[in-house]
Amino acid sequence: VDLSTVRTVDAGAVRIVVDAMGGDHAPLEVVAATLSWARAHPTETILLVGIPERIEAVAGGPMPANVEIVPASQVVEMDESPALALKAKKDSSIMVAMDMIKQGRGDVLVTAGHSGAGMAAAVLKLGRLPGVDRPALAIQMITETGPFVLVDIGANMDSTGNNLYQFAHMGSLYAERVLGVPHPRIALLSIGEEKGKGDQAIQQATQMLDDDGRLNFIGNVEGRDLVKHVADVAVCDAVVGNVTMKFFEGLATFIFSLWRHEFERGIRGKLAFLLMRPAIGRIRTLFDYEKMGASPLLGVKGMVLITHGSAKRRMIEYALDAGAAAARARIPDFIADAFAGQARRPRAEAQ
Amino acid sequence: VDLSTVRTVDAGAVRIVVDAMGGDHAPLEVVAATLSWARAHPTETILLVGIPERIEAVAGGPMPANVEIVPASQVVEMDESPALALKAKKDSSIMVAMDMIKQGRGDVLVTAGHSGAGMAAAVLKLGRLPGVDRPALAIQMITETGPFVLVDIGANMDSTGNNLYQFAHMGSLYAERVLGVPHPRIALLSIGEEKGKGDQAIQQATQMLDDDGRLNFIGNVEGRDLVKHVADVAVCDAVVGNVTMKFFEGLATFIFSLWRHEFERGIRGKLAFLLMRPAIGRIRTLFDYEKMGASPLLGVKGMVLITHGSAKRRMIEYALDAGAAAARARIPDFIADAFAGQARRPRAEAQ
Repeated sequence: VDLSTVRTVDAGAVRIVVDAMGGDHAPLEVVAATLSWARAHPTETILLVGIPERIEAVAGGPMPANVEIVPASQVVEMDESPALALKAKKDSSIMVAMDMIKQGRGDVLVTAGHSGAGMAAAVLKLGRLPGVDRPALAIQMITETGPFVLVDIGANMDSTGNNLYQFAHMGSLYAERVLGVPHPRIALLSIGEEKGKGDQAIQQATQMLDDDGRLNFIGNVEGRDLVKHVADVAVCDAVVGNVTMKFFEGLATFIFSLWRHEFERGIRGKLAFLLMRPAIGRIRTLFDYEKMGASPLLGVKGMVLITHGSAKRRMIEYALDAGAAAARARIPDFIADAFAGQARRPRAEAQ
Repeated sequence: VDLSTVRTVDAGAVRIVVDAMGGDHAPLEVVAATLSWARAHPTETILLVGIPERIEAVAGGPMPANVEIVPASQVVEMDESPALALKAKKDSSIMVAMDMIKQGRGDVLVTAGHSGAGMAAAVLKLGRLPGVDRPALAIQMITETGPFVLVDIGANMDSTGNNLYQFAHMGSLYAERVLGVPHPRIALLSIGEEKGKGDQAIQQATQMLDDDGRLNFIGNVEGRDLVKHVADVAVCDAVVGNVTMKFFEGLATFIFSLWRHEFERGIRGKLAFLLMRPAIGRIRTLFDYEKMGASPLLGVKGMVLITHGSAKRRMIEYALDAGAAAARARIPDFIADAFAGQARRPRAEAQ
């Protein structure tokens, strides 16, 4: 257990609440990942929320001592409308899991379920931290020299300058506390590199970040420079962030499929493949987006991470790593501090 | 000369106005590209606008018969503020070139100069087509099965739903008339694939496109599916489009540099490189963004194309190809028709 952070949840254990029923491959892959992770981390606790019989059916044996099943009778499916589903399914795994966080019975929630439902349940059950106008969903993006944080990738529509300004603060704390970047470089993702160039929200956020002075605000970053790691946190409106994140996935997959096709082509390709196998491994490792684990939802009263709906056990295990790290880093506490002028907000689960 | 289009500028010749002074490598690369292109297309005319002595100095010999120098005494530099520069430099090459279009002395303008200045000069000198609220800048993006049009990539900030709706119409005409796509599939680039999912502007545009019914509107496309060529025209706000376009450039360059590095590594890499040389050539050809030529500015009273500020002669030659094709396709006429209920607007240069 890393005790080097300023404040830890608890030196002994992090209690991770896992939505066992959420995701394209739930509960099978979620349960498998959880059991494997729990065995590898015997001092941590996992609370597996879902339909007990279905969890037990896929567990294939006795639970490790540090895994507890918390019953929930309903499931929000991936194709449901979040608003309707949450209203109708009060005993769904995501709602019960969120309640565990609210009641201080868990330190962090990890879900591979419907991201819209996860965000809505978090806002509904936990609420926003005082001073935070809107929560934001962040993600780690790949560069050759390490990850940067992209925020917002989909928690809000039509963000204002003030929203972007708040996202910058929350993203900075996440980069500092979880990625371990001292004094993270914060940039607004925009249309030109000249500071202030962009739409009204970007211009307003620029003004606010300049006036504030608490962050290491470096101005704008353009799309072409994102992969050069010129910023540790790139702040943008949700449509920009979501399109960028998914375009990364689509374009990288496309380019690698072209190479794969060429390496499968004829004797030349197959021979080159054998020669390049170590190189291909290096490039694959760099672009292993499963290691990015999960997207933290910043700005709510509790730590919630949402991982890919299509995540399988390997990615979910990384999401559990990310969850434990985020819980230890106590991001909500630090956000509360930053947004409430250093006045500590009481947190039941931390006392 | 392609006579298959419904209406052509002129069966014999297109008159291309070229801003000889615009771009990082002007006038050298612009003039070199122009002379080479003019020699290869002896029936077309090029009007080279700029400082005659500087043009002649880099021309290195007599001009081809189909190239005429049009004097302009000033230059808008790449780092100038467009608004101030255009006000102060009435005799700049971009302003004089735009005047040629306005006066019907040229059919299309091609510039590698400051894109903001080019767009501002077009709006200032030519004005918007009747019914068009805001012009839009488009670009061709790469997929394995051919290009799609991304619009807007930077002509406007804070576009409304009505703006996006108009961009969809203009992009559709461009895809149909210049790329030769019958009944182009139009999509809104957004945060989720469900139709209507997105911010207020996207929702409003969805409603308008659904109500209109003239276009082949297919709903939303996500960032991850852009490269799959699921749409022929992807419509978005300028920040989204600009970040997407530049992220493409940055990410593709980054991935290819990783491969290059691996192919240069040791004897294995070098041997693999020799084996993969044809494959590398194929992939390079597919990702040859210089062939994309230039970005059309849609919605102004004249055909204006803006190419990359860093364009060298090869890309500028492609931009001249694109310019000739756009002029022949008479995009402004078709946009005028679409926006003015089929009422033909008189066009001096076409009579």
